[in-house]
This record gives sequence, C-alpha cells and structure tokens, in this order.
Amino acid sequence: MSARILSGRTVANALVDELRAEVERLPVAPRLVFVRASDDPASASYVRSKARLASKAGVRNETRHLPESVRQEELIAVVEELNADDDVDGILVQLPLHAHLDPEPVLTAVLPAKDVDGLHPVNVGRLWTDRPGPVPATPAGLLRICDHYEVPLEGKEVVIVGRSALVGKPAAALFLRRHATVTVAHSRTRDLKAHLRRADLIVAAAGRPGMIGPDAVAPGAVVLDVGQAPVDGVLRGDVDPAVADVAAALTPTPGGTGPMTVAMVVANTVAAARARRGDGGGPAR
Amino acid sequence: MSARILSGRTVANALVDELRAEVERLPVAPRLVFVRASDDPASASYVRSKARLASKAGVRNETRHLPESVRQEELIAVVEELNADDDVDGILVQLPLHAHLDPEPVLTAVLPAKDVDGLHPVNVGRLWTDRPGPVPATPAGLLRICDHYEVPLEGKEVVIVGRSALVGKPAAALFLRRHATVTVAHSRTRDLKAHLRRADLIVAAAGRPGMIGPDAVAPGAVVLDVGQAPVDGVLRGDVDPAVADVAAALTPTPGGTGPMTVAMVVANTVAAARARRGDGGGPAR
Repeated sequence: MSARILSGRTVANALVDELRAEVERLPVAPRLVFVRASDDPASASYVRSKARLASKAGVRNETRHLPESVRQEELIAVVEELNADDDVDGILVQLPLHAHLDPEPVLTAVLPAKDVDGLHPVNVGRLWTDRPGPVPATPAGLLRICDHYEVPLEGKEVVIVGRSALVGKPAAALFLRRHATVTVAHSRTRDLKAHLRRADLIVAAAGRPGMIGPDAVAPGAVVLDVGQAPVDGVLRGDVDPAVADVAAALTPTPGGTGPMTVAMVVANTVAAARARRGDGGGPAR
Repeated sequence: MSARILSGRTVANALVDELRAEVERLPVAPRLVFVRASDDPASASYVRSKARLASKAGVRNETRHLPESVRQEELIAVVEELNADDDVDGILVQLPLHAHLDPEPVLTAVLPAKDVDGLHPVNVGRLWTDRPGPVPATPAGLLRICDHYEVPLEGKEVVIVGRSALVGKPAAALFLRRHATVTVAHSRTRDLKAHLRRADLIVAAAGRPGMIGPDAVAPGAVVLDVGQAPVDGVLRGDVDPAVADVAAALTPTPGGTGPMTVAMVVANTVAAARARRGDGGGPAR
C-alpha cells in the first residue's frame, strides 16, 4: 500500500467551508429545491446527503417528493413553477423517476440558469464551447480533487473509461480544457489495458466493480475512481484496491469522488445564485 | 503511392445528387441565406462555393453582404429578421466578420433550428447528449466519407489532432457515437507521434501544413486531412503527401474534406427545412 489517498471527503469539506463563507457574504442565502419523483431508497439517501451538505454550506434547501400517482404533466408543472419562482436558485431533479415517467422532457424543462446538475443540453453546449455555465458535478469534482492535491494536468495522458453523459464525456471536455491529451475508452475499446498502462491519470467510470487491476496501471499513475456499485452489500469502485500498490495516488471508495459530486452540486447552486441575483459573481467553471 | 484516395469531391457530388432528389419531392424548395459581414476575399469565395452547391441541390439561396459600416446591432437585427422569416430554413453567418464586430453574440443569435453550421451552443449540447439536431459540417463530412468508402469505425483507434470547436471536439463526439476509441491530441500533447502511430484512423485538424509525415503513420491507417492552409499560393493540408506511401487510404488536398464540409451545410439546410416545414423528415444526424 503506497499510493497517496486522494480523499474526496477532505476536499468536499474544504469546499463546503469555502462555500459557507461565500454564502455568509451574500445578502440572501441561495435556495436549492430537490424534486424527487421516486420511491427508490438509494435516490432518497442521495438527496438526503446533498441536502445535508447544502445546509452545512448555509444553502436553504427543501425536497418536493411526488407520489407514484404523479402524471408527467404535473411533474413538469412543478419544475415550471420552480423556474418561475425568483427565490429558487437551483433545481435538482433526482433520477431515477417513477417508472411511468419520461426523464428527458423533465430534465430539459429545468431553466438552464437553475440547472445545478449541469446536464441540460444548453449547459452541455456551453461546456463544450468554453462558455460560462454550470459544469456537471461529478467531472467538476474530479478537477477539484486534482487541484486540491496539486496533480498536474497540462500535457498529461488522461484515459477516461466510460462515455456517459454524466461523467465520461463532460470529463473529457474539462481535461481537454486543462490541456491534457484525452482518450475516451469504453466497452467497445479493443485493448483497454494498453491504454490504461500508458495513462498518467485514469478516470474509471465504467460501473464495473474491480475491473481495473494493478497490472493495468502504470507505476506512478493517478487514479480517480467514479464507479460505485454495491457488491455483497459493500460499495465497490471500478478500481481494485490492490491498485494502491502501484499507483502514485488513488481516490478511495467510499469517500472519494462521491462526496465531491455532492459538494459540486452545492457549489453550482451558490454560483447560480450569485449569477442570478446579480451580485457580480459568475457561475462556477 | 499506394493509399486509396478518399475523394471528398466524389462523395460530395453523390450527396448533392441525393439531396436534389430529396428536394424535388418537397412541396417547397428549402431556402438558405448567407450573411457575410466581411470584405475578406477567401470568405467571399467560400460563400460562393457553398452557394453553387446549394443551387445544384435545388436549394434556394442568397447572400446578404453587409458593408464595413455595419454596426453590431444592425448585424444582429439582420439575423433576427431571418429567424422570424418563415420562408428561411437555414442561416449561415460566414466568419470572419469585419474586425470591429464580435462574432459570439451574432452566432448565438441564430435560431438553433436554422443553424446549418451546427455550431450554436444548443446544437453542440444536443450533439453531446445524443439528441437530434444539426451536426457541425466538417466532422459530419468526415463520417460521410468513412461511410461512403466503408471504413469501419467500431472499436477502432481514432486519433484526432486539434481540439477546435469546429472540428476536433465535435469529431470526437461523432466518432465516439460510432463506438471508436477516441483520443484528442493537440499542441500540448507530449508524444504526438506515438499516438499517431497506434491510430487506425487519423483526423488531422491542426492547421500546420505537412506536420504529419510518413514516419508518423502506421501502415494501413486511414488518414482524413482537414488542415487547409495556403503555402506559396498552393493549398496544403496537415498531412505530408508522402503519407500516401504508408497509409491505406487518404483524403487529398484539395478535393478531400473541404468539398464535404460545403455539401454538409447544404444537407443541414435540407434537413432543417424538412424538420421546420413538418413533412415528417427529421434533422440530419
């Protein structure tokens, strides 16, 4: 066990302290509304942890829990009411929704300026064209971890495993912006191990527990593990813990990239409030 | 000289024939308006070649040439007038603009549904989130060349040199969608030659004439050359012509990716007309 542990929890706590100080200087505390149209216990617990961190940062927050009887139009009406409410800065529609609901029109109904997830197509377009706007929380958290631990990125070989809209693709945009050479690998990649072994930094976001073993990582590489899946009741990442024997630095699971995702949602809310309420602050980049 | 020549001109002509047949079946011919606020001769000639191909496809087209005295608000007013005109299907603001004009607000003023360049942030977001919408013309043309010559992409190693909003980044989105493993390299890339030598397909979009020589290309690779710069009055690509001795297939300069870009603008116009005028056709993907 030699790798430095990149504690997302530590970085998230530092960020929340910063955000609280920032919020205290604002004339009005930002307000974040979670919309939960699901009875999924994992999603409920995820909203609770976001709400807890929002409160710690001084961000007002509340959850609208919609029963299984909710119709698509009613759910969209709730989002539109929140869009129109000038005292709401951030709206987070927690997925998954009840099975009969279509998430796509619900997510695009959120006003881009209040989209603290950064997943609205308008915000994705802003991300890829280097315009200001909220950045998807998980990849934004990865950069924050790199910056906290002073991991250099310029000219580095970054290999991202997974091409999801939530992680892999926006992470590619962010690491390119930091002048890394970026490879996006995925389930159809021919020789994943060859890519991983030449990487200075690996982002593992495949959702396949333990798929990256120590033989696939170059000595001295930095490994950020986004994969999170329960295995026999224990949360496991995509990265085999034995990678710690080879890598220079590694995020743990749990306590790695997960807490940072939550903290970045709160950071996006504070940035959205500053941008909307016009106190001169711009949205987070 | 052994590489197969991937003639963009041939593919563009075939596409224009298809588009003309498609336009003939429409109740109203699509209409494309070029906005040219520049006296730059290269941009004038570029608009002329797009107009010529549009006419060949049966697409009505006209050019609004605005003098150097035009003010930013006047230019935006022209765009807004075209947005509002129900008989206009496509708007193309040709860059560069007169030096005193800011292109950014002009390009975002174009209605996304009429943005035949596919560069509006809303359309970039649609591209990266796999929603329907116009795709930037140059990378769309690259895929069309691959499909015409039956170049397989799934699981292949694609290395893109250049990370511009016009070519490199949208090309990454498109090749990922086709299940290639995609690397985006650029001026800060540490060992470009190592990346190029492992590539099954290279997209050269750096704008550095002749920068990719035969020693940087694996035998059997496919090379798509987007770079176009005049050298001693002759248009040169990023790829040294001697690469033809090594590569399996190569786009020439001129007559390669350039004509395809022009043709894809016309294709985006026809798709925009079909989507807007509601005859059941969707936008091009």
